[in-house]
Amino acid sequence: MLVAKLVSSVWSTRKAESMRGLKLMLVELVGGTRAGESMMVVDTIGAGIGDRVIVCTGSAASRMLDDVNVPVDAVVVGIIDEDCDLPVD
Amino acid sequence: MLVAKLVSSVWSTRKAESMRGLKLMLVELVGGTRAGESMMVVDTIGAGIGDRVIVCTGSAASRMLDDVNVPVDAVVVGIIDEDCDLPVD
Amino acid sequence: MLVAKLVSSVWSTRKAESMRGLKLMLVELVGGTRAGESMMVVDTIGAGIGDRVIVCTGSAASRMLDDVNVPVDAVVVGIIDEDCDLPVD
Amino acid sequence: MLVAKLVSSVWSTRKAESMRGLKLMLVELVGGTRAGESMMVVDTIGAGIGDRVIVCTGSAASRMLDDVNVPVDAVVVGIIDEDCDLPVD
Amino acid sequence: MLVAKLVSSVWSTRKAESMRGLKLMLVELVGGTRAGESMMVVDTIGAGIGDRVIVCTGSAASRMLDDVNVPVDAVVVGIIDEDCDLPVD
Repeated sequence: MLVAKLVSSVWSTRKAESMRGLKLMLVELVGGTRAGESMMVVDTIGAGIGDRVIVCTGSAASRMLDDVNVPVDAVVVGIIDEDCDLPVD
Repeated sequence: MLVAKLVSSVWSTRKAESMRGLKLMLVELVGGTRAGESMMVVDTIGAGIGDRVIVCTGSAASRMLDDVNVPVDAVVVGIIDEDCDLPVD
Repeated sequence: MLVAKLVSSVWSTRKAESMRGLKLMLVELVGGTRAGESMMVVDTIGAGIGDRVIVCTGSAASRMLDDVNVPVDAVVVGIIDEDCDLPVD
Repeated sequence: MLVAKLVSSVWSTRKAESMRGLKLMLVELVGGTRAGESMMVVDTIGAGIGDRVIVCTGSAASRMLDDVNVPVDAVVVGIIDEDCDLPVD
Repeated sequence: MLVAKLVSSVWSTRKAESMRGLKLMLVELVGGTRAGESMMVVDTIGAGIGDRVIVCTGSAASRMLDDVNVPVDAVVVGIIDEDCDLPVD
């Protein structure tokens, strides 16, 4: 999985029917040589802007959603505790 | 998913039978350290050149298509609203 | 998918039984920041050296083959028309 | 698979239900041009900070877990023997 | 698939039960902009140190193994013939 920071919400009125109602967020990877890479994720946990989150990517990602047939390849699967110091911060 | 901009159409007369009729477009990733990376996507939403789109990649991508057995690994799953400011622009 | 140019054939006498008879080619990605990346693909369309091709990677790739159980993760799924100008050329 | 070093534990109270009880660790890739890349893994083998581990990523990763439907895409599948010298060290 | 050179064996006594008996090798990618990237593979073909090999990655990789449920994401699927000159050498 990847460590990332939530940077903004994303609004997309015209999107796949099966993605209606899903919360789309932009994240930026933190730590290591991939820091600064940006990607879009679905969040079902209720993370907010600035939270450090755990992102699962690839075919495993949609296991986090009620419908595994949604065309989604990156999902927030956890929020890192605030007092959890990581060498990547 | 990835944030990208549609840059051009792609014409390929000789291609997989199952891809006939699919609209092939070239995109360029925007934002973050992967900005400038180019890839080819299938668009079923009707996005146009210059639109910012949401691209799903990998095995999840073909869930966007009627036939999940098409050899396609990157698909447009949404168009980002014009008034949606992203820190990646 | 990825845009690439076929650069050479590859000969491998000792390989997976299920890959016997498959045409192996070396390609180089063209366009964008991944230009110059090389990978090996299976071609079933009959592309030739110098052709610009569309490459599908990952688990979706083997859908292009008769036997989806072949250990192959990158396949040519189309040849880009000669008169199709791409901003990546 | 990837060669990595375990650098720290990760605490995430708010995470996917199916991930409860899984040990989350941060690793850093060692060796080759991807050295320094950081990612998060699940460890079920009992590796410790500083151990060199073998990480399986993608959909194959969850085969290491009791429940293959967990949204996990990177797992420790082995600890490299201490006396195993690798040209990557 | 990727073109790589076998650089060393890897010994891992504590590993996934299903990986017992599998031959683990370290490879380094050759050719193109990913040259120098290192990864670990399973070899069932009998390749040796210094051989140029074809590596299949991702979920397709385990199709090369008797048990497709092994947590393995990179496998040698062929040895490139010695007299096969590649522009990547």
